[in-house]
Amino acid sequence: MITLHDLAGADPDLRFSPYCWRTKFALAHKGLPTDSQPWRFTDTDKIAFSGQARVPVIQDGNTVVSDSWAIAVYLDQTYPDTPILGGPLGQAHARFINAWADSVLLPGIATLIVRDLLDVVAEKDRDYFRTSRETRFGRTLEEVQAGREDRVAAFRASLTPLRVALQGRPWLGGAQPSYADHIVAGTLMWPRCTSKFPAIAADGPIAEWFGRVLDLYGGFGRSAKTV
Amino acid sequence: MITLHDLAGADPDLRFSPYCWRTKFALAHKGLPTDSQPWRFTDTDKIAFSGQARVPVIQDGNTVVSDSWAIAVYLDQTYPDTPILGGPLGQAHARFINAWADSVLLPGIATLIVRDLLDVVAEKDRDYFRTSRETRFGRTLEEVQAGREDRVAAFRASLTPLRVALQGRPWLGGAQPSYADHIVAGTLMWPRCTSKFPAIAADGPIAEWFGRVLDLYGGFGRSAKTV
Repeated sequence: MITLHDLAGADPDLRFSPYCWRTKFALAHKGLPTDSQPWRFTDTDKIAFSGQARVPVIQDGNTVVSDSWAIAVYLDQTYPDTPILGGPLGQAHARFINAWADSVLLPGIATLIVRDLLDVVAEKDRDYFRTSRETRFGRTLEEVQAGREDRVAAFRASLTPLRVALQGRPWLGGAQPSYADHIVAGTLMWPRCTSKFPAIAADGPIAEWFGRVLDLYGGFGRSAKTV
Repeated sequence: MITLHDLAGADPDLRFSPYCWRTKFALAHKGLPTDSQPWRFTDTDKIAFSGQARVPVIQDGNTVVSDSWAIAVYLDQTYPDTPILGGPLGQAHARFINAWADSVLLPGIATLIVRDLLDVVAEKDRDYFRTSRETRFGRTLEEVQAGREDRVAAFRASLTPLRVALQGRPWLGGAQPSYADHIVAGTLMWPRCTSKFPAIAADGPIAEWFGRVLDLYGGFGRSAKTV
């Protein structure tokens, strides 16, 4: 049994971290039984054993791994059946997709839902969340999110590489889902779980692909709690 | 000996197609002797045997392959030593990088150098080039390229996924170059060969990585003719 420390909201069943979702899809893909423990931003003492202050963190026997990318590499090395990275080049090329998700997809979504996030985080996390994010953006959460109805078209246009990559294939992993699908869909679980604002279009190739990911692993993503 | 039909300018030694450069890096990576034949946009009769009208086209014995992506897949299957895609997941994940190059990198560069390209294409290609590109953009070549000094910063910012992916590793292929490097560097050969305008910054991680690619395969990229 692998223990996962997983970001939760005021509602302990609301799990919404885009990085934790990447790890959860990877664990589900490999069929690894997981004890998923709710964790809040200010629970840094609870993961101090990992030597850093952010989730996801997994404990697998005596092994502790933090950082979603390092966890994916660890899981594929330790449990090589049903590969998610697929060897040195598969891993190296997935690293670009991870970089795109972290530098285009995730910041784009943040500007659409960051004020909504404040409504779902735990009461004890609210001050930390507002202060840390407003410092990062240099604006209030309300200012960052303002005008999202006008900005969402540009965000959706920034997803063109995803649309092109999915042309003629069901998964970013090709004929089978891979960690590439987990990276991008895990990031999209973040707005799905926390906001009623439609970050991605309701139809089209991205929505269809995301629907397929939601159905994977016994509907693991689809059954997750949302606001 | 593989025959490659390779886009050339008025100067037959000026070879600048971003798609042909992907193929040329891939052929060089695998050490395959290549007879590279100059081809112009209007030489559609010369590649009619391929069933379509664009380069790159390769002839390998009786096998004809067109489209840079299909050529990369063919080369890795036919010459599996020194892999450039690396199995099903390596190939699938590289497909995303190809999609990013085609939908972000290449269109971004086009708006910076498309008028410069008119000065290097063969005389017989000039009318075709201007008409086809102006139809695509809905503006004159001069209008598209105007203001590039002001727009280049936004273009360079769009390369952030590339910068992030290269953090801590020498190649997009990880410890060794792969077709991921060929895709992106091949696309950057296009402005390098045809324009004095600095599309990418002269220093920083992208310039350093591109310099390493130029030195690969006996300085294959670095020794290519430029304007």
